Amino acid sequence: MTLVGHLINGRVVTDGTRSQAVFNPATGEAAKQVDLASQATVEQAISAAQAAFPGWRNTPPLKRARVMFRFKELLEKHADDICALIGEEHGKIAHDALGELQRGIENVEYACGAPELLKGEHSKNVGPGIDSWSEFQPLGVVAGITPFNFPAMVPLWMFPMAIVCGNCFVLKPSERDPSATLYIAQLLQEAGLPDGVMNVVNGDKEAVDTLLHDARVEAVSFVGSTPIAEYIYATATANGKRCQALGGAKNHAIVMPDADMDNAVNQLVGAAFGSSGERCMALSVAVAVGDAAADALVSRMQEAMTRLKVGSCADSGNDFGPLITQAHREKVVGYIDSAEAQGATIVVDGRKPQVAGYEEGFFVGGTLIDHVTPEMTSYREEIFGPVLQVIRVDSMQEAMALIDAHEYGNGTCIFTRDGEAARYFSDNIKVGMVGINVPLPVPVAYHSFGGWKRSLFGDLHAYGPDAVRFYTRRKTITQRWPSASVREGAEFSMPTMK
Amino acid sequence: MTLVGHLINGRVVTDGTRSQAVFNPATGEAAKQVDLASQATVEQAISAAQAAFPGWRNTPPLKRARVMFRFKELLEKHADDICALIGEEHGKIAHDALGELQRGIENVEYACGAPELLKGEHSKNVGPGIDSWSEFQPLGVVAGITPFNFPAMVPLWMFPMAIVCGNCFVLKPSERDPSATLYIAQLLQEAGLPDGVMNVVNGDKEAVDTLLHDARVEAVSFVGSTPIAEYIYATATANGKRCQALGGAKNHAIVMPDADMDNAVNQLVGAAFGSSGERCMALSVAVAVGDAAADALVSRMQEAMTRLKVGSCADSGNDFGPLITQAHREKVVGYIDSAEAQGATIVVDGRKPQVAGYEEGFFVGGTLIDHVTPEMTSYREEIFGPVLQVIRVDSMQEAMALIDAHEYGNGTCIFTRDGEAARYFSDNIKVGMVGINVPLPVPVAYHSFGGWKRSLFGDLHAYGPDAVRFYTRRKTITQRWPSASVREGAEFSMPTMK
Amino acid sequence: MTLVGHLINGRVVTDGTRSQAVFNPATGEAAKQVDLASQATVEQAISAAQAAFPGWRNTPPLKRARVMFRFKELLEKHADDICALIGEEHGKIAHDALGELQRGIENVEYACGAPELLKGEHSKNVGPGIDSWSEFQPLGVVAGITPFNFPAMVPLWMFPMAIVCGNCFVLKPSERDPSATLYIAQLLQEAGLPDGVMNVVNGDKEAVDTLLHDARVEAVSFVGSTPIAEYIYATATANGKRCQALGGAKNHAIVMPDADMDNAVNQLVGAAFGSSGERCMALSVAVAVGDAAADALVSRMQEAMTRLKVGSCADSGNDFGPLITQAHREKVVGYIDSAEAQGATIVVDGRKPQVAGYEEGFFVGGTLIDHVTPEMTSYREEIFGPVLQVIRVDSMQEAMALIDAHEYGNGTCIFTRDGEAARYFSDNIKVGMVGINVPLPVPVAYHSFGGWKRSLFGDLHAYGPDAVRFYTRRKTITQRWPSASVREGAEFSMPTMK
Amino acid sequence: MTLVGHLINGRVVTDGTRSQAVFNPATGEAAKQVDLASQATVEQAISAAQAAFPGWRNTPPLKRARVMFRFKELLEKHADDICALIGEEHGKIAHDALGELQRGIENVEYACGAPELLKGEHSKNVGPGIDSWSEFQPLGVVAGITPFNFPAMVPLWMFPMAIVCGNCFVLKPSERDPSATLYIAQLLQEAGLPDGVMNVVNGDKEAVDTLLHDARVEAVSFVGSTPIAEYIYATATANGKRCQALGGAKNHAIVMPDADMDNAVNQLVGAAFGSSGERCMALSVAVAVGDAAADALVSRMQEAMTRLKVGSCADSGNDFGPLITQAHREKVVGYIDSAEAQGATIVVDGRKPQVAGYEEGFFVGGTLIDHVTPEMTSYREEIFGPVLQVIRVDSMQEAMALIDAHEYGNGTCIFTRDGEAARYFSDNIKVGMVGINVPLPVPVAYHSFGGWKRSLFGDLHAYGPDAVRFYTRRKTITQRWPSASVREGAEFSMPTMK
Repeated sequence: MTLVGHLINGRVVTDGTRSQAVFNPATGEAAKQVDLASQATVEQAISAAQAAFPGWRNTPPLKRARVMFRFKELLEKHADDICALIGEEHGKIAHDALGELQRGIENVEYACGAPELLKGEHSKNVGPGIDSWSEFQPLGVVAGITPFNFPAMVPLWMFPMAIVCGNCFVLKPSERDPSATLYIAQLLQEAGLPDGVMNVVNGDKEAVDTLLHDARVEAVSFVGSTPIAEYIYATATANGKRCQALGGAKNHAIVMPDADMDNAVNQLVGAAFGSSGERCMALSVAVAVGDAAADALVSRMQEAMTRLKVGSCADSGNDFGPLITQAHREKVVGYIDSAEAQGATIVVDGRKPQVAGYEEGFFVGGTLIDHVTPEMTSYREEIFGPVLQVIRVDSMQEAMALIDAHEYGNGTCIFTRDGEAARYFSDNIKVGMVGINVPLPVPVAYHSFGGWKRSLFGDLHAYGPDAVRFYTRRKTITQRWPSASVREGAEFSMPTMK
Repeated sequence: MTLVGHLINGRVVTDGTRSQAVFNPATGEAAKQVDLASQATVEQAISAAQAAFPGWRNTPPLKRARVMFRFKELLEKHADDICALIGEEHGKIAHDALGELQRGIENVEYACGAPELLKGEHSKNVGPGIDSWSEFQPLGVVAGITPFNFPAMVPLWMFPMAIVCGNCFVLKPSERDPSATLYIAQLLQEAGLPDGVMNVVNGDKEAVDTLLHDARVEAVSFVGSTPIAEYIYATATANGKRCQALGGAKNHAIVMPDADMDNAVNQLVGAAFGSSGERCMALSVAVAVGDAAADALVSRMQEAMTRLKVGSCADSGNDFGPLITQAHREKVVGYIDSAEAQGATIVVDGRKPQVAGYEEGFFVGGTLIDHVTPEMTSYREEIFGPVLQVIRVDSMQEAMALIDAHEYGNGTCIFTRDGEAARYFSDNIKVGMVGINVPLPVPVAYHSFGGWKRSLFGDLHAYGPDAVRFYTRRKTITQRWPSASVREGAEFSMPTMK
Repeated sequence: MTLVGHLINGRVVTDGTRSQAVFNPATGEAAKQVDLASQATVEQAISAAQAAFPGWRNTPPLKRARVMFRFKELLEKHADDICALIGEEHGKIAHDALGELQRGIENVEYACGAPELLKGEHSKNVGPGIDSWSEFQPLGVVAGITPFNFPAMVPLWMFPMAIVCGNCFVLKPSERDPSATLYIAQLLQEAGLPDGVMNVVNGDKEAVDTLLHDARVEAVSFVGSTPIAEYIYATATANGKRCQALGGAKNHAIVMPDADMDNAVNQLVGAAFGSSGERCMALSVAVAVGDAAADALVSRMQEAMTRLKVGSCADSGNDFGPLITQAHREKVVGYIDSAEAQGATIVVDGRKPQVAGYEEGFFVGGTLIDHVTPEMTSYREEIFGPVLQVIRVDSMQEAMALIDAHEYGNGTCIFTRDGEAARYFSDNIKVGMVGINVPLPVPVAYHSFGGWKRSLFGDLHAYGPDAVRFYTRRKTITQRWPSASVREGAEFSMPTMK
Repeated sequence: MTLVGHLINGRVVTDGTRSQAVFNPATGEAAKQVDLASQATVEQAISAAQAAFPGWRNTPPLKRARVMFRFKELLEKHADDICALIGEEHGKIAHDALGELQRGIENVEYACGAPELLKGEHSKNVGPGIDSWSEFQPLGVVAGITPFNFPAMVPLWMFPMAIVCGNCFVLKPSERDPSATLYIAQLLQEAGLPDGVMNVVNGDKEAVDTLLHDARVEAVSFVGSTPIAEYIYATATANGKRCQALGGAKNHAIVMPDADMDNAVNQLVGAAFGSSGERCMALSVAVAVGDAAADALVSRMQEAMTRLKVGSCADSGNDFGPLITQAHREKVVGYIDSAEAQGATIVVDGRKPQVAGYEEGFFVGGTLIDHVTPEMTSYREEIFGPVLQVIRVDSMQEAMALIDAHEYGNGTCIFTRDGEAARYFSDNIKVGMVGINVPLPVPVAYHSFGGWKRSLFGDLHAYGPDAVRFYTRRKTITQRWPSASVREGAEFSMPTMK
C-alpha cells in the first residue's frame, strides 16, 4: 500500500513511526496511508529551510520569479495527473478539480510579477542631503497549514508568493488528501527550486504544534475551521510570530425582488452545491426579500436541482462528488435532520442519494431547505455540505441585519439590478468579500482573500498584494554621506526638519 | 492639587476612585495627581467611540483630513504650551520637546493626505463583464497604549492616522506624564472632531486589560518595553484582535576605520545622550572596528562630553534633563556600577552629576564606558539612560555578528565613507531601521517605524504607509451586472478564467 | 485707473508699453487695465525662475510641502477678497466663485502630500549585488497658460503641484480677469516661497509665444479652446518640450427612461446654467431616450427654470452672472438664433434677459432648446453659454453613438438606476470623465482631469497623480559597489540576468 | 532570393512594388530583399488593427497576459533561430544577440503582470454617497518605429506592453535587419494572439509618414537618432497624437582617482566595444579625473584591448562583429580620422582590422583615443562605432560640467568607491540613466528607459511602468446612486466638499 511521505530538502522521505489511512471517499476504501511526521521530522524540515535561506534570499527576485514561470508550465502540463490525485482522495469531479487547480495557477502567475511587487519606496532628500528608502525583505522560514477541501489551490495561495519573496517554506497540508499537494511541491522542485526552499510535512497536531512553537518559524498562514484558526492565531502569536488564520463561513445571498431570477438560480446552483458545498466560499444561505421572490426562487431552484448529478469523479459528467469522510457525511445529514426537526421545510432532500456502484461512498445529494430561521442549528453553524437554506425576510435592511449578526463574515452576495441597492449593500455589510450578482466572490489572484469577523484572524489577507506584505518585513534605511568640508554640530533635540 | 482626568465623548471627566502622583523629575516633587480609570470608565470611552463610529466612517475622507489640517495649525500655535507640559512632567528640555512635537506633527501632516492614502485597487474585466475592486474600510474602535518617553510624539504616531482612516480611538497614555497628551487630544477636539471619535483614558493595568479584553476593540497599537509588548501582543491576539506591539532596543553604531570621526562623534553625542537616552532609538553602543578607531572615538567623545550640560528644562541651554523617576535613576546607576564591577572602564562618569538648585532631581550625567563586552549585564539589557558603551572588535563582520546576536533589532547605524560597506551592512543586518552615517535612523513620517526580532511583534510597522493598512481592513467587491438577454449556465466548477 | 502688472522674482512690476482694458461684465465698464508683457518681460520671468531653480530643487519636499500648508491657510483666510476680484472681472456670483476657489484649494491640499507623491521605486538585487531605483526629479522652469473662466481654479490645478515637485513656474493667466490670479500668486509668496519660484506674466500672444519658444521652458500646461490647444501642443512639442493642452467640450447627459427625473432635473439645472455655462465641464446637451423621457424632462426643466435668477455678483441670491465679454454674448445669442433658424424649438428663451440696473451687462438668461439635431451648428460647436439643448433618441445605443461621434470627449453623464446600463456606458463611451447620475463629473483633486479625443492633447491629465508625473522626470540609477576581492570579466554581450 | 514581407491581420504578405537589399554585414553581400510597404499597405495594417481592437480591448487582461506567458515560452524555445537571423542581417555575435533577446524577453515577462499593472485607483466617498475611480483603458491602434541596432529588443520594449494593455499594434522595424523582428511577431501570433492585433510593416519614409499622418493611429513610440526623433515627435504631435521619441546619446563614464581600476577597465571594454558600439547606451567617452587615473586607465585599457576579437557572427568566440553598412563604416572611420586630425592621440587604431575570410565585411576594430577635447567633432557627435575616447579633467566637478554641457543625456556612469561622490553625481547629473560602477545602466524591464535633454522627446519613458501609462489613457468615473427618498436641490456653484 502506498505510503505518502514528506518533501524535505528536495527529497521525499518517510518517518516510519506513525501513519494514517487516506480514503477514496467515492468508494469508502482506504487505498493509501500517509506518514505522520514526528516533531523531529518537522524540525528537519525547518532546518532544511533555514539552511537554504541565505542563498535563496540573495537570489535576485527576477531569478526567483523565473522558477515560478517554469512552475506554471509544469502545473499546466501535469494538470490531469494532479486532478486525478485530487479525485482519488478528495472525490472532486475533474472539471471542478481543474477549476481549483486553475485558481491555484493564477497565484503562481501573480508570483511571476515579484520584481514589480517587491519594489520598495524611495525618498530623496528627506532632509538636506539625506535619502531614505524602505525595502521589503523576506522573513526567513515560514509555514503554511492547509485544509482538505482545496489540496491544490490553498497551498498555492501561500507558498508561491512566500517563496518568490525570498522565504523558505514548510507546508503542512491536510492528511486527508495529501498526494496532490506533495506532487505539486515536487513539480516546483523540478522547476529549478534549490533544495530546502520548499518542504512538505504531512502530519497531525504534533506537526502543527512543532511549527507553532519552533522559534525559527517566523510566520504562519492557516486556512481551516474557526476553532482551529483561533488556536493557531493565539499560539503562533504567543510565540512571537506573525500569523494570519482564516476560519469558517456562512455565506448569504440576498435575492432582491428585482433580481434576474433565472440568472440568480443558475448562479446559486453552482455556488451552493459545487464541490459538495465543501468550500469556505460556498453559498449556503439564500435570503429572499419578500415572499414573491422567495416562492419564485424556491420553485425554480427545485426545478433546476432535478438536473443535478452527484457521483464519483470517475464520471466527469457528474456535477459534484462525495463528502470527505463518513463522519462528515453523518454530520451534514444531522444538520438536515435538525432543520427538519426544528420546523424547516425540506424541499429537495439529498440525504439518501442513489449512486449506483458507489454504495459505500460518502455521498449527500443536493438539498434545498425553505423556511429556515436564524435560531436553527443548521443556520447558526457551518454545514460544509451540499445544502442550500432559504430564509424569508421583508426588507433588504432585515436581510443585511441577519448577515451582520452572524459570527462569520467571509463572503456574501446580492442579486439585484439596482445600482443603489448594490452600493449600499457593498458599503455597509460587515463581510470581507462581496458579490454583486456574483455568488462566489472569491477575489482574483491579484486581489487578496479574506473574511471579516470570526472568519479571519490577523491583519493581512491571503494571497495577492497582502501576501507580499505578509511574507516580507519592512527595512527602512536612512542615508547621509558626510562631506569632508562640512562640520555638523551635535544635535540633542529630536532631529526634525525645520 | 491638579487632578489629570480622561477625555471621553468630548468632555474631560474623572473617575474619582483611584489616583497616582505625577512627579516633576527635575525637582522630585509630586505636583499633580492623575486619575486612574476603572474598568467602567474605560468601557464608557469604548462606548463613546463605538457610538461615534457610524457617523465618522461615513464622513468623506477629505472632510476627515480637513480636521487634521486644522489640528496641525493648532499644534503649531500651542507648541510652547505643549512643550511646557512635557518639561514639567517628563523633564525634557524645550528644544528637545519641540523636536518631539515636530516629529509628531509630521504624522498629522501625513494624515492630511488620507484621500490619496485610502485609494483602493480597481480591476476592470477580471472576467468577461466582471469588475472587482478592493476598498480599505475602517475597523471601528481601536486603541493605543503609549509610553512615558514621548508623551506627544508616540500618541501622534497612532491616533491621527487611525482617525483619518475613519476609526474611533481610545488612547491610554503613560500615567507618568499624562498632561501633554490630554492637552493635545483636546486640541484635536477643538479642530472640529465630533465627540467620541477621540478618547483618552489615563490609568494602569486595569485600564490596559479592559482594552485588551473588550470585544468592541478591534485593534491595539502599543509602544513600550519588550516584556509588556509580548504580554499585549499575546493577550490582544488571544482575544481575536489585530495587534502591533513595539518593544525595547539596544541600538549599535559601527564606527569603521574610514569614518569621518569628527562627524561621527558629533552625531553620537546627540544620539546617545539626547533626552537622557530615554529613547527607543537612542544609540547606546558604539562598536569600533580596530583599536585605532576605538581610541580616536573614545578620546574625542570624552573631549566632546566636557561640554554636555545636564539640568532642568527651566534652562533651555541644557542639553538634556533628568530621568523619569527616582527608581529609574537608580536602575541606570546600577547598570553603570555593574559594568564597572564586570571590568569595563568608566571613561566619563555621570553617576553623581551636580545640578545646582535641583538636588532632589532624578539626574544622571552623560556616561561613557569603554571596553564593554557582550557578556556584561549593561550590554545585554536596555539601560534607557545617558550611557554610551564602547565595544572594540577586529572586523566589520564581527561587529555585525554582535548586532545580529542581540535580542533586539530596532535601529542601528554605520559610520563609513565606503559605498560597499554601507550596502553590505544595510542589506544583511537583522535590524529594522538602519542608518548610514545617521545615528538615529527614525524613519520620516511618510515611511514606517518598526524594529525586527524582539523589538516588534506584529506584521505592520507603526505610522506611515503601514499604519494605513493596520487601521483599515480590506473589502473586495466583485460585480457583474446581468444582461437580460444572456442566460448563463450554472457553473459547478470553481469559476476560473479559461 | 488700476494697472494690473506681473509678478516676477517676488515683486509686482509693469512693463509699461502695451496694456488692455479689463471689463466688469455686469456693468460693461472697463474699470482696470492689464499690462501686456513684452517678450523681454516674459524672459525676465523665465530668468527669475531659472535662477531660483537650483535652490528650490534641493529644498526637501517636506519643506516645500509646508509652503503649501501655509498657502492653504492664506487662501482660506482671504477667500472673500479673491471671490470679490473674480466677481468684478469675471462676473461670477460669490457662491460660485467660492466653489471655484474651494476646488482650487483642494489641489493645494493634494500638493501638501508631496513627500508621499514623490516616492520613487526601489529595487533590490536587480542582479547579484546590484540595486536600482527611479527618482522623480523636477524639470526646471515650467509654464502654465490658463483661461478666463476659472481665474482661481485652473491656475491652482497647475502651479501648486509643479512647485511642490521642485519646479519654478511662469504663469500666463487670462488677460480678461487677471487680478484674482495675481492676488493668489502673491499669497503664495507670502506663504514663504522663495523669490522667483512663482512668476506671473499677464499678456497676449506675444507672451504665449515667448513661453513656447524659449528653450529654458521645459514643459507647458494649457487649458482653453481646442484650436488654441492644438496650436500650443504643436508649437511646444516642435520646440522639444513636453506639453499637455486641454481644449473644448460638448458634454452630453443621457436621460434614461428609468432615471429619477426630479433628481436629473435638479442636477441638470445647475450643471447647464451654473457659471453661465462658461465651464469646459458644463452639461450642454441632454439626450433623452424615448419621447416619454424627453417630454417629462423638458416640461420639468421648463418649470424649474422659472426660478433661475441671472444678475450681478453684487447680489449673492443670483444663480449666475453675465458672460465674459460683449462679443461672447453676441456669439452665444447667435447660436440660439441659428438653432431656431435650423428648426429647433426654443422652449425657454434667455436672449433678452431683464437685469434691472445692469442694462449694459453682458447677460444671457437660461435657455432651453428642444428638438435639436446633430447637424445643427449649435450642436456641433461649443457654445459656452447658459444654453441646454435637448436631443431625442430611441435607444441608449443611439445616444452613445451620438456622443462618440462628437469631436470632443471631455465629460458625459448618464441618469439611470440600472447597474448594467451604467457599467456599459462608462466602460464603452469615448469620453474621459464620466458621471453616473453626476452631471458635472469633475474628478476630485486626488484623481486627474482630462478629456479624450480633441478635448486633450498629450498623454498625462491635469492635476492629481498625473500632474506629479507631468511635472517630474524619471531618473533611474543602477548601482553596484565593487568588491575588491572579486574580479569580473568584461562582458561583451548585452548584460542580462541568466 | 528571399523577399521579407509584412505581417498584416495574421498573414505575411508582400506589396510587390518597391523593395530594397538586406546585407550580411560580415560578408558585404546582399542576400535578401525587403519589401517596402506602400501607403496603401500600411493603411491595410492600420485597418486590420482597428478591426481587431473592439474584441481585444474587451478580452480580460488576464487572458491577454496569458498570450504573453506563451509568447515567452516560444521566444525561449526559438532563441537560436532568432539569434541566427540577427547575426545574418545585423552581424551581432550569438552571445550578444542572445543578450539582446533576453533583455527583450524580460519585457514580455513584465507584460505578464498586466492584471496588476492595469489596476486603477478607487476612491470611496469622494462626497457623501459618491464614489470615484480611474481606469486605464487602451488607446486603440498604436504604432512603433524601431532601429536596426536591436531588431529583437527594441520592438519587444514596445509591443508586448502595448498589446497586453489592450491595444492593437503596427510595427515598422528597421529595413536593414527586418527578419528577426518579423519572426518574433509570428511567434506572438502562434502564442494565440487574434489576427490583426499585431502587425508588422517593413518600409521606409513612406511607411513612417503614413503612420504619422493616419488619424486612426493614437500613439507613436520611436527609437532612433535625434534628428529623426525630433521629426517624429513634431509630426506625430502636430497630428494630435501622443508620442515618445528616443534619440541619440553620448554616454560618459567618470573614472575617479579612487576607482577600482581593474574593475573599471573590465567594465568599460564591454560597454564601449560590445555590439561594435552600435548601442544608444554604449559607453563612448571616459572622463578621467586627474592624469594619474587617466594614465592608468589608458594603459590598462590598451592592454585589455589586445585580447579583443572582431569578426563574423559565424565564430561565437568573437567579441563583436561588423558595422551595419559600408556607409556607416566609412562614417565611423571618418570620425577617427577627424579626431586624429584635430590633435587627439590614437592609442589603439581599429580602422583597418584584419578579418580573414571577411575582407568585404563592414568591420572596424576597437579603437581607443586619448587626449580628446570637447571641441572635437568626434566628441560633439554620436559615433555609433567601437570607439572609446578619453578626456582628461582635473576634478569631478569639471567632469560633470562636461556631461551636462553635452546635448545628449541618455546614460552616464561613475567609477568610485565613495558614497558621497556617487550620491552627488547621481543626484545632480542631467542624464536620465545613471550607473554607479555600472557602465551600461540600462534599467531593468520593471523600471523604465529614457534619457534627458535631446535624447528623449515626450514625458513618459520606454517600457516598464511608464509604458503602461503611455499605452493607456485614464478614464475617471464619478458615481452617485440617487435615493428615491432624497430630493437634492440644484447646485449652481462649483460643487465642492464643504
